[in-house]
Amino acid sequence: MPYLTNTVARRIQWGECDPAGIVFYPRYFEMFDGSTTAMFSAGTGLTKYQMFEAYKFAGYPMVDTRARFLIPCRFGDDITIETTMTEAKRSSFNITHHLKKDGALAVEAFETRVWVGRDPADQAKIKSQPIPAEVLAALSRS
Amino acid sequence: MPYLTNTVARRIQWGECDPAGIVFYPRYFEMFDGSTTAMFSAGTGLTKYQMFEAYKFAGYPMVDTRARFLIPCRFGDDITIETTMTEAKRSSFNITHHLKKDGALAVEAFETRVWVGRDPADQAKIKSQPIPAEVLAALSRS
Amino acid sequence: MPYLTNTVARRIQWGECDPAGIVFYPRYFEMFDGSTTAMFSAGTGLTKYQMFEAYKFAGYPMVDTRARFLIPCRFGDDITIETTMTEAKRSSFNITHHLKKDGALAVEAFETRVWVGRDPADQAKIKSQPIPAEVLAALSRS
Amino acid sequence: MPYLTNTVARRIQWGECDPAGIVFYPRYFEMFDGSTTAMFSAGTGLTKYQMFEAYKFAGYPMVDTRARFLIPCRFGDDITIETTMTEAKRSSFNITHHLKKDGALAVEAFETRVWVGRDPADQAKIKSQPIPAEVLAALSRS
Repeated sequence: MPYLTNTVARRIQWGECDPAGIVFYPRYFEMFDGSTTAMFSAGTGLTKYQMFEAYKFAGYPMVDTRARFLIPCRFGDDITIETTMTEAKRSSFNITHHLKKDGALAVEAFETRVWVGRDPADQAKIKSQPIPAEVLAALSRS
Repeated sequence: MPYLTNTVARRIQWGECDPAGIVFYPRYFEMFDGSTTAMFSAGTGLTKYQMFEAYKFAGYPMVDTRARFLIPCRFGDDITIETTMTEAKRSSFNITHHLKKDGALAVEAFETRVWVGRDPADQAKIKSQPIPAEVLAALSRS
Repeated sequence: MPYLTNTVARRIQWGECDPAGIVFYPRYFEMFDGSTTAMFSAGTGLTKYQMFEAYKFAGYPMVDTRARFLIPCRFGDDITIETTMTEAKRSSFNITHHLKKDGALAVEAFETRVWVGRDPADQAKIKSQPIPAEVLAALSRS
Repeated sequence: MPYLTNTVARRIQWGECDPAGIVFYPRYFEMFDGSTTAMFSAGTGLTKYQMFEAYKFAGYPMVDTRARFLIPCRFGDDITIETTMTEAKRSSFNITHHLKKDGALAVEAFETRVWVGRDPADQAKIKSQPIPAEVLAALSRS
């Protein structure tokens, strides 16, 4: 794959877990959203806010996502999330996340997102726009 | 399909939305988790806590879930979520959610969950166990 | 007190609880934020989004809040939240919330918020502005 | 003060912010809950889960908390949280958090929590118990 893989390391928090003592699964999607942004930041050297200013865009909302939960994680567990862009089209792109615990795959997730800007016809709405070539270049492995 | 459909109506909250002004997508999974529980409660007449006491189980953690996001929702939007069990096996079961806004499908989601109890060999762990026949009966349409 | 009291009824969700089986306390603040908005909506007849359009404001961020936790709540508990504006100044206002379970006070909270708009000098910033007289009138008991 | 101060550094996430583009304030309490645990872990060398195993306790739920919000933070901001135990009684203890952005105090918070275990008379309930002397020793500055 031609795109960089970025890895985030973190500890599972008490407040991310449910009464069964394991991560409440919507929280994994929050982690993955952060991991996608961390990957863009690793490539571009910009925070998401700085990307807003640099690219006049409005984010990369989710179009389609799937996750499979293989091993439960609980508070205090130290995990890593490996994130890669696997494909980029004009406006949409695919991401995979591999969340690992003690080296074993605990959760894997797939995302299709779309790069959007404000709709020129209605600033309250968002509209897909091309991913800037310089962003794609920044995420590509040489 | 032989299982009941339960519908939840709610208003999208400010705190469920992100800086683009639309629902932060992990929040949809939280809504769906609540909708799955509301469906069980509608069928059994029990809260999830009462189900814990009645069935000595430990929840129905997610195994695999997918969602497609068709129309963005923003704070103040009134939505409905229609939830149905589409298939039940020994321990695992499938659920679909249709989240609608003004009657149009905004998000659709699929879930595979597993009914679990405490592992007799290690109370700190969870282990799949058969879905009680009386729960399945309570969710079936006559 | 001259302002209306609005009451919200809801069931505590599984995903709002932590491994101790009780509400993860930041989630109470989410409930209170929703209750403050529900009170404004009850008075004005507008959703928060409609208030954005009607009043050209940017929300009522928190300045200072305190909560006391008296009785733990767990998933499946049905609770009510009684919310009242206790004082309004030019831009800031005070709110109290009484969260009750089986009629007993479980959590009480105090808030000072400020009514803000976009800063004319910098649209990326927010700036306090006077609470519209018609909003205060709508929240007042006759 | 005789207790150690622990500092956590993190970046504000997109999903922690609301449609005004700034942190949704209940999220600060989530950060503070994590910071309190990070302080215990820094002192004891144990994760919260390991503390559960070592001390047979059930957490340190919140009794009373207050926060003042001085400077808004937005996604991409890098912040630090300085956390100190300011007083410890038999079962309850006080914590302060100073959240700083570019060196300036953005949010300050105060907490009173109580150290609890399972109620011997009813395992479904929690009951205050003395903070272990070895935990207090571990948090004390020599």
